[in-house]
Amino acid sequence: MFREMLEQVRQTTPLIHNITNYVTVNDCANILLACGGSPIMADDIGEVEEITSICGGLNINIGTLNQRTIPAMLAAGRKANELGHPVVLDPVGAGASALRTDTALKLLEEVDFSVIRGNISEMKTLALGSGKTKGVDADVADSVTEDTLDQAVAFAKEFSKKTGAVIAITGAIDIVTDAKKAYCIRNGHADMSKITGTGCQLSAMTAAYITANPDHVLEAVAAAVCAMGLCGEKARLRMSGLDGNSSYRNYIIDAVYNLTPEELERGARYEVR
Amino acid sequence: MFREMLEQVRQTTPLIHNITNYVTVNDCANILLACGGSPIMADDIGEVEEITSICGGLNINIGTLNQRTIPAMLAAGRKANELGHPVVLDPVGAGASALRTDTALKLLEEVDFSVIRGNISEMKTLALGSGKTKGVDADVADSVTEDTLDQAVAFAKEFSKKTGAVIAITGAIDIVTDAKKAYCIRNGHADMSKITGTGCQLSAMTAAYITANPDHVLEAVAAAVCAMGLCGEKARLRMSGLDGNSSYRNYIIDAVYNLTPEELERGARYEVR
Amino acid sequence: MFREMLEQVRQTTPLIHNITNYVTVNDCANILLACGGSPIMADDIGEVEEITSICGGLNINIGTLNQRTIPAMLAAGRKANELGHPVVLDPVGAGASALRTDTALKLLEEVDFSVIRGNISEMKTLALGSGKTKGVDADVADSVTEDTLDQAVAFAKEFSKKTGAVIAITGAIDIVTDAKKAYCIRNGHADMSKITGTGCQLSAMTAAYITANPDHVLEAVAAAVCAMGLCGEKARLRMSGLDGNSSYRNYIIDAVYNLTPEELERGARYEVR
Repeated sequence: MFREMLEQVRQTTPLIHNITNYVTVNDCANILLACGGSPIMADDIGEVEEITSICGGLNINIGTLNQRTIPAMLAAGRKANELGHPVVLDPVGAGASALRTDTALKLLEEVDFSVIRGNISEMKTLALGSGKTKGVDADVADSVTEDTLDQAVAFAKEFSKKTGAVIAITGAIDIVTDAKKAYCIRNGHADMSKITGTGCQLSAMTAAYITANPDHVLEAVAAAVCAMGLCGEKARLRMSGLDGNSSYRNYIIDAVYNLTPEELERGARYEVR
Repeated sequence: MFREMLEQVRQTTPLIHNITNYVTVNDCANILLACGGSPIMADDIGEVEEITSICGGLNINIGTLNQRTIPAMLAAGRKANELGHPVVLDPVGAGASALRTDTALKLLEEVDFSVIRGNISEMKTLALGSGKTKGVDADVADSVTEDTLDQAVAFAKEFSKKTGAVIAITGAIDIVTDAKKAYCIRNGHADMSKITGTGCQLSAMTAAYITANPDHVLEAVAAAVCAMGLCGEKARLRMSGLDGNSSYRNYIIDAVYNLTPEELERGARYEVR
Repeated sequence: MFREMLEQVRQTTPLIHNITNYVTVNDCANILLACGGSPIMADDIGEVEEITSICGGLNINIGTLNQRTIPAMLAAGRKANELGHPVVLDPVGAGASALRTDTALKLLEEVDFSVIRGNISEMKTLALGSGKTKGVDADVADSVTEDTLDQAVAFAKEFSKKTGAVIAITGAIDIVTDAKKAYCIRNGHADMSKITGTGCQLSAMTAAYITANPDHVLEAVAAAVCAMGLCGEKARLRMSGLDGNSSYRNYIIDAVYNLTPEELERGARYEVR
């Protein structure tokens, strides 16, 4: 059924409001266009509510967080909730500074997220919470491998139950889950971590997939994660001996541009736990 | 005569001050270098007047507008006017929020622009104006096609008369006009809209063309629009089956880098109305 | 011995905190990954001390300076000094505005830099200093050529003595020197100046090299400068007739990704003065 998820993106051209970091913002815009969506970037408190109102979904990424944009993230998130728009959180670097951790926790308190996408370390930080935000049990390994997969799935389900969001933990094996059903995804290539912002790009694309598929959020997130990983595989095959991470970045976005629903359906490698 | 327009850019290396958005800023810098100009990006109120003074032209783009940079745009614009430097306005997203619409209108009130470049929707927003800024008749279709071209040309000429700026409306057919003469340009490829920032890039390049050709502003803008479209065509031909919007972006900037005055002269497809 | 410098980067994966401009930040992140390091970008005063504490080195670049980030640069720089982390300064555009010149001089007063990397014009501005910051004799030519090389080397050594930093002046010939020993480097290609941000990228990469080689800072900087130039040469050879500055940018980062210690050792072209 991942085929239908992508078809819906292509047919409805979801307009996504992004409040995101300035490092990877151009790649986020281009991958949204590549997958079939349309991007708007706007982060000023004076316009974020209006901008999010004309969009279909919202993507909040704290990668280069600053005190000017934190209130804008909160305002946009609340407005999107009010309008029933799906909202994605990418808690980049949560755990690396109190500002990031506290902001991510505050966003979780004040905004209902449809999806939270990050690596296991960021997710553990959010799950543990702070003094006032009591968290779930985050006593889980620091990387998701075959050995730690069951444990990580249990953690992710519990965190989904607590937040009400679909949880997408990406790494060597990706986990996409709600409180009940978990997709364990084995698409992707290790070299994707040598490109800045593949995670940010996936979060932006995820916002497009869930906006286009409001009745199948879990499946839409899993489809987006498979699509990113599959395109990472296809792009890796395209690399010549002279290519490195810069060309790889371009090839992945190119692959997302050219990905057909049939290829996604055939190429998705996952199991349900 | 477009040949001479490009030759002048290459011979004079116009230095362009850009106050622009953080989404497409890197592509704007690279396309300025590609066409033969030179970029400076500076947006702090504490330095924009000095920076614009050492440049030849100014490019203002409201793509990721924020309250910190609005006063900087106004100050830089006024300074450029005082020095007789040409100024380009790219009213990205005017109409999408009050902040963007009001800021664009305020800029139009306080700064004399040499060129305003946007899509038909942004231009209509500006032409209608606000309560205090009475606008021209913007009862024109929402896209420029063969059927609506005459109407759109009339609208653009009227808006040029009102603002004193050359108006460049880009879309399926591009219109470049002052109050009297309109170039209707049919270069370009529809897939350019699948890349973020081709409009922003064109505005930056336009600033270089008019700075290098101060006595032929209308023709310089038309030449820049033809150059961008022609490079979009050439780059499209270069694409293989694996290429998508990311490689297309690179190929367009590459094509601008390699464009010769003769190719521009031969490849420009326009009529005058 | 440049071979060992690169090997150390690859083996230790230095984490570099960047407070840098929004024009070239994505390329800085990707070149850090390409050379074997790892990037974090963070510029809010509320987190820069914490972020720099978890990193190995700091890279400060004033390319799109603004009043929000100046205090963050100072705070991060002082913290890095306190922790004994190496710090690189890239004084982009010093001399172009009082804000840039004054900020760069203030940074020099309050932070001990391990390396200052810029072009000859920026370096002269810093060396001359302001009223309160008396500078060294900066009566040196405006470009470094065979004719002016001895003079420029003497200037750079004097400036290194004054600041205690390794000085890297990049241009047609690059000079890397402490107060005693100067590497005069002839790697690179003139077309690198047609890409935005090759200087910024080099500064970021330099931070990775010195962080990985704390006991050989002078040699590590020279190795980074040779590596960037050599990759500029290799990437230039890869260019086809259709390629321009955008593909060249990608190819340089790709070349950094693929550069082996042996190639660097063989390809470095320098003499010591």
